[in-house]
Amino acid sequence: MAETTRWFEDFHAGEAIPLGSHEMTREAIVAFARAWDPQPMHLDDVGGATSLLGALSASGWHSGCVLMRLFVDNLLAGSASLGSPGIETLKWLKPVHAGDRLTAVMNVLETRASGSRPRMGLIRARFDVTNQAGALVLMMRSTLMMGRRAAA
Amino acid sequence: MAETTRWFEDFHAGEAIPLGSHEMTREAIVAFARAWDPQPMHLDDVGGATSLLGALSASGWHSGCVLMRLFVDNLLAGSASLGSPGIETLKWLKPVHAGDRLTAVMNVLETRASGSRPRMGLIRARFDVTNQAGALVLMMRSTLMMGRRAAA
Repeated sequence: MAETTRWFEDFHAGEAIPLGSHEMTREAIVAFARAWDPQPMHLDDVGGATSLLGALSASGWHSGCVLMRLFVDNLLAGSASLGSPGIETLKWLKPVHAGDRLTAVMNVLETRASGSRPRMGLIRARFDVTNQAGALVLMMRSTLMMGRRAAA
Repeated sequence: MAETTRWFEDFHAGEAIPLGSHEMTREAIVAFARAWDPQPMHLDDVGGATSLLGALSASGWHSGCVLMRLFVDNLLAGSASLGSPGIETLKWLKPVHAGDRLTAVMNVLETRASGSRPRMGLIRARFDVTNQAGALVLMMRSTLMMGRRAAA
């Protein structure tokens, strides 16, 4: 096991934590859609062009999974994460097209001790995902459960 | 193109639409986690057993993607779906373990015409995902955009 370098006490409201970037290739967009969301706008150019999205676009679940992977690789992997009870809200604000480069940031909104579990703290955060033009394509708010250093 | 068999006008508040079932194999749980959510509780038995989840468990994103795929295969594929602006809320209520069989239902909460787009209607729904014991493991509320028959 790698050493835990980030505990509940290391998160502070107002902090913005960069989570890195990921390019959305055409191949990955189509492969994800075939597996999990085989709707025409996610599968080929014709389906994309005739959809509200205007062109072949990634499934919103694909963008969400890319955010999750960036979050694990660039923060959770070295943390005392205990998981999450769910997603408070998730908005798909703009289409994600082939070749787009997505960049994710975690904004810490609030931290508080768990009332029921003394070894756990709760971190409410807003995740912003922007494309290479700086446009916000996905926004998610959720709460993380994180181990406390004092309990280690 | 297959014929569209379900339009906005065909959805009614109070309706519960079965979306079918899917078995979560150990192989699929680990493969999904390696790709999108490589945290210890989703990767192997030791990581699962030492986590809050108590045993190897599917990523919550995996359960969400399974719901999406059931939704596409059993409803959206024959509908006038125009996509979704996002997820209002999503709760992971119980762990999903290897061998669990998930069953999904779409509950129509509300239908209304779009104020800005006359060819579109909005359907607010709650999706319930239960396991083979009947326990609710995932609940999601979201809004769908659906083409109107009158506009076809």
